Formats: sequence, structure tokens, C-alpha cells
Amino acid sequence: MPEKVAVIGVGQTQFGQLYEKDRTKLLAEAVLDAVSDCNNLELKDINEVFIGFTGLGGTQLGNVSGWFGDYLNLLPKPIHRVENACATSGYAFRCALMAVASGYADIALACGTEKMHDIGTSQVLFEMGRGGDSDWESNFGITFAGMYALVAQRHMHVYKTTKQMLGAVAVKNHKNAVNNPLAQFRRPITMEQYMQADLTGMVAQPLNIYDCCPLTDGASAAIVTRADIAKKFTDAPIYVLGSGAGTDSLATFRRDDLTSLRAAVEASKMAYKMAGVGPEKVQIAEVHDCFTIAEIVATEDLGFFKKGEGGKMALEGQTAVDGRIPVNVDGGLKAKGHPVAATGCSQIRTIVKELRGEAEKMQISPQPEIGLTHNVGGSGTVSVVHIFGRKPPSK
Amino acid sequence: MPEKVAVIGVGQTQFGQLYEKDRTKLLAEAVLDAVSDCNNLELKDINEVFIGFTGLGGTQLGNVSGWFGDYLNLLPKPIHRVENACATSGYAFRCALMAVASGYADIALACGTEKMHDIGTSQVLFEMGRGGDSDWESNFGITFAGMYALVAQRHMHVYKTTKQMLGAVAVKNHKNAVNNPLAQFRRPITMEQYMQADLTGMVAQPLNIYDCCPLTDGASAAIVTRADIAKKFTDAPIYVLGSGAGTDSLATFRRDDLTSLRAAVEASKMAYKMAGVGPEKVQIAEVHDCFTIAEIVATEDLGFFKKGEGGKMALEGQTAVDGRIPVNVDGGLKAKGHPVAATGCSQIRTIVKELRGEAEKMQISPQPEIGLTHNVGGSGTVSVVHIFGRKPPSK
Repeated sequence: MPEKVAVIGVGQTQFGQLYEKDRTKLLAEAVLDAVSDCNNLELKDINEVFIGFTGLGGTQLGNVSGWFGDYLNLLPKPIHRVENACATSGYAFRCALMAVASGYADIALACGTEKMHDIGTSQVLFEMGRGGDSDWESNFGITFAGMYALVAQRHMHVYKTTKQMLGAVAVKNHKNAVNNPLAQFRRPITMEQYMQADLTGMVAQPLNIYDCCPLTDGASAAIVTRADIAKKFTDAPIYVLGSGAGTDSLATFRRDDLTSLRAAVEASKMAYKMAGVGPEKVQIAEVHDCFTIAEIVATEDLGFFKKGEGGKMALEGQTAVDGRIPVNVDGGLKAKGHPVAATGCSQIRTIVKELRGEAEKMQISPQPEIGLTHNVGGSGTVSVVHIFGRKPPSK
Repeated sequence: MPEKVAVIGVGQTQFGQLYEKDRTKLLAEAVLDAVSDCNNLELKDINEVFIGFTGLGGTQLGNVSGWFGDYLNLLPKPIHRVENACATSGYAFRCALMAVASGYADIALACGTEKMHDIGTSQVLFEMGRGGDSDWESNFGITFAGMYALVAQRHMHVYKTTKQMLGAVAVKNHKNAVNNPLAQFRRPITMEQYMQADLTGMVAQPLNIYDCCPLTDGASAAIVTRADIAKKFTDAPIYVLGSGAGTDSLATFRRDDLTSLRAAVEASKMAYKMAGVGPEKVQIAEVHDCFTIAEIVATEDLGFFKKGEGGKMALEGQTAVDGRIPVNVDGGLKAKGHPVAATGCSQIRTIVKELRGEAEKMQISPQPEIGLTHNVGGSGTVSVVHIFGRKPPSK
């Protein structure tokens, strides 16, 4: 079994339309936030760095390790750029765990940054197409909303999932975001507003504007170390119980089943196995709700609900802050925002804060013991799942 | 100290102008070559994959893990895309070491692929600009030849390095490539030809066409496992004694000294420290000679020669196959070719073959005990150095 690893610091910037801040500045803010979240840790104590960046937005597309490292005053430390589309910083985190568990690093930093408002919306959506299959899907015009609309249509057909169930996810996540000072959209919406949005134009049938996460600028960071020395750097280490990752075909049309993301199912199996706990032990989860249907599918793929019942459970309030398994208490990608490469570590930040009991207005009660993050790239091409606990893993 | 790791299989495709093969097919060839280089190993035994790809050449730019993984029949295994410009697969290899040493994987695969001939030369050179500082260097027109020309001019000014010394590197590497069946240029050149090339047009003063590595299509792969189980998979495990990485500013103009690459100096220090050996113990090295001056600087940065004496030593034949420290016996980037993201693991392949005594016509004599690889990204922005041994590390 791998050496035990703990999270000692998490950080995040405001998410939103941040025209006044460059992606380097955003990343620096998030990293310094994570450093100051630790006790007795300075930037210079970090041994290995994994930066998540997809290169969206018309600037430095490759070789960004030195670009960011210079601005962050991290030179000459080893820095890797990791990119797995919207799951980028979730994978950077998995790499950071390996860096520490291997003994290559005592302290490792995973982080991600994205700036999506420097160029026009149509251009950034075009660039996002690189997260889909460029040759056979994106270049023919299908967007991610289009791909997830296919998932939604199939789910509705097979499992009788309804528009109202999709709407329940949107309404819940908007409500949750009100409690998150770093969220992009801090305004509640009603089911009536959600339904009315169909009339003002669909993004991709059956998804309307409230089914889709926004374009977001922002950055996030997480710092990890060996569990046995974690208390030097924090009063409340949060232990990594499990980490899993899975991969599926890039092109949506190559998959056998549209109603489940195989990559996420495999990632969660691996994470549960490593953690030695099942979905019934998870008390809070941040899942990748790039579209409302994605949250419904995620809650099924992760084993929180039976296949096909995710929509019904959302409508019943089972994923609300006071439900059976609170999901996306920070507003999720839908309302907190989705700065692509920053989403993974932002999810981790929320779970770490909740497990510490430091989530302020977002805090669920009772304080959870075990939480989970679920990060997806592309239309389900890659997925990485992490399970965290307040107590160190027993084995 | 990290768990000990050994290389059990290496693979590479032909390097060259391979118009008939896609980057996915090239990668599959290299990976299957590495798998068949092992005993009793099948593709399905691999636990974690790190794919190096920069996205050059007008196709899938992001989220390639599922794209390659699908073609390689690696689904649904965890796959990460790692990108650090021309040092990409060297970093993928470092990640693979961590995956194994951490216990996350028993068997990890590092690989890289690049296709540089699918689009026109000017377009691919423009795209390569993303490995330099897009905002402040590349977009103003400077190419990598231009950046390394600055390094050469400064080295010539400070250390009296001459054109003939640069030429000695080109002549040596072309001669070495004749012995490498996978090399792009298997023809010797004379010093007279090298000097004459100045007259037919400089690429960037003082670099002529023979000072510059070519555009190359190709792929490479390396498979690693724990040292204690390596003999299950190979009769001749090659042990990783040391791994180091360093980072410098992205922009060349932000560096204090042009005659040395700080990233490489730091990477080698870290690798030597981990290995517990100094440069005097290294008997063979593959260094990143994207330009002739880069090899001269590398042999100094790695401590093989005193600062400023790299050129003189090359001219004296100290880096020839029968010299004090044979450098780039496979032809190096200069003559073997430089398929950007595939170069790192190709260097590792050559050293592994030499240490095993299986390098055929490239084999140096006596069979070396310790070898080193030195991989650089950008104009010295990132660098990763690995040290390999025939015997397991003592500590």
C-alpha cells in the first residue's frame, strides 16, 4: 500500500469574470492562499509542483511550468504541467500524492488556473473543443453542451428522467452557491425560472441556460505531505483515503452507453477499494456538474443511488445540504463556476474545509468524517476520484 | 529514500519523415515495442500511464489521454497527459517513477509521440513557438534557433568557443547516427561540409543547418517497475539511481546567464545527489543537443567538463564513442532526430540498451555501468536528468 498522505493546505481565488487579473496572478493568489492555510510552511518548502492548465484563452499554450514557476517564485523547483481537460487539477493532485507517497517529495503542490474571459465566448468555446475529439466531433460543430444533451436525452429516454429533475439540480446548486463567498453566481433561482428558461432559447435540447455551467476565471491549489509529519503543518490534517482514475474513449460516439461515464465508474471503484470504504460511508461529495445531467449521472456512477434514480433523488432533496448525501454544497460547477483546470483542486478545497468544520456558511451538520471529489474531463473521457477522511486510514 | 525502481522495457519507432503513420499509430508501435522488450508482460499488466504529447501538427491539442488510450487498448486505466515542451517524455518518465515508488502502480508506462510533418514547416515552427514565451518572445518572431544562437554567441564571446567546436559536435553526431538503424539521418558529414554550410545560408548566426536538429516524426516508450520484482519481467533490469528536475524562467531574456542552463544544472545536482554518484562516474550520456551549442553547454552543466571547455573537449574527441565520456552515441537530437515529446524516452532507451550491452553497432566498449540522460524543454526552461545503473542502488 502507498505511504499515507494528508492535505495540509488548500487555496482558491474568487471565481467569476475577473478581467483585471491574469492567469499567473490568479494562480499565485490560490497558491499563496494554500500556503498561508498551513502552519509553519513557506513557499520554499515545497519540493515538487504539478500545475494544471489547459491553455484556454489565447495565451501561452505550452511549456507553462517555467512561466508560472517564475511568477510564483518557485524556480528552480521541479514543475510538471499536467493536462487532462476539465479534470486537469484533479490529476495534478493524484500526481502530487504519488510524489509524496514515493518519497520524491516531502511537500508537493497541486494547482490549476484558467482564464476564460480574455477572448470572445465563441472563440473560447471553439478552443474548448480541443477537450472533445477534434477530428471527429468538435470540428463538426458539436459543443460540450451538445454532447451532454445527448447524455440527457438518453437518460430521459431510458430512465424517465424529467426536465424537473434536471431543474432540481440547478435550483439546489444555485441555492448552495449563495453560501459560498467565492462563487460566481450567488443568486438563487426558482424552478419556475428554470422552466421559463426553455422558452428563451435552448442551449442544446433538453438543456437550457440553467443546465449549463458558466465560463469562469479562477485558480485553486492544494498542498500535501506525508501523514506522519502532517501535524507539523496543520492542526487538522485531512487524510487521503483513496485515489482512483479511469479513462474512456475521447469520442462520445465510441461509447457503449451514454447514460453512465465508464471513466468515472472505474475511477470510483479504484478509489473505494484503496480507501476500504463504500459509497454508503461518504457523507459529502463534490461532483463534476458541468451540466445538470452530469450531476445526476455522477451520483449514480459513484454508487450513491441506483442506476436511473439520480434524477428522482435530486428532486426529492436527497442531495441537498440536509439530504442523505449533500452534493456540491459550494454551488458546484453550475453556480460556483468552472475555470476548467482549476475545478479539481477547488472541489478538494471544499471537501477539506467541510471535513475540518471550517466551511462557514457552507458547513454541513453534523461535521462529516468522509468526503469525496469527482472530477471529469471531456464528455467523460477521463475521471479522477478522491476520498478524504478526518481520521488517518487504518491500513 | 524512495523505493527502488527499475526499467524493464524500452521501445522506439523509426525516427524520420513518416508521412504514412499517424501519431497514434507511432505511439502504439513504440509502446508495443517496449512491452515486447519485457518478459512475461502484457499491455493489460500496466497500471498507470503517462503520455507525453505537445500537440504539434494540427490535430488533437488537448485531452489526449483517452484518444491515445483508446487506440492503444489501454482503457480504462489511469492515463495522464504530461507536457513540458521538448522535455515532455523525460518528465513523463519521472512521473512513472513516482507512480511505482509510491505504490500506486506496480507497472508504469512513460511514453511520448510527435508528428511534425503533417503540416508545413513554417506552421510547425510557429506552433513550436508555444514552447517559448509566446507573449514576449515567440510572437515577435524569434525561433528556437534564434534563442540558441544567442547562447552560442555568448558562449563564443566569453569562452572563445569556435565554429569548429560547434562543427565537431555535428560531425560526431552524424557519424554516430550511422550506427543507429532508427535514426533520421544516417549519413556522415565532414568538417568541410559543415563549414561550407555557412555559405549556403545561416539558420541563425552562428548556427547553420548542420547545427540544428531536424523536424521529426516518432514515438518512444519506457516501462518501469519496483526493483525487487524487476527480474520477473527482464533478465537485465536497469536500475534508476537518480532522478532530478529543475525549472528556469520561460523567457530567455529573463535569465542571468546565457552560457549555462540553470534548470539543467539544478536537475543534475538533484539526480547526482539521489544517485550518490558524481559526474566522474558517468560512463555514457545522452544529452539534449537540439543545437550543437546545446550539447557543449550540456556537457559543462552536467559537470563532465569545466565551464567553458565543452567545445574544446568536443573538438578533441572526448565525447566521441571512444572518448572520455561518449555523448549521444545514437546520433542525438541532431542526427537521430527530435520528435519533441518522444525525445526523453528515446534517450532513456539508448542508455538502457547500452547498459544491457544490447546496443549492437552503437554499443560502446567496455559495456558501461552507469549512464545518464539529460532532457531540456524550451530554451532551457525545464530540464530533467536521470541516472541509470546496471547494479541496484546500494542505499
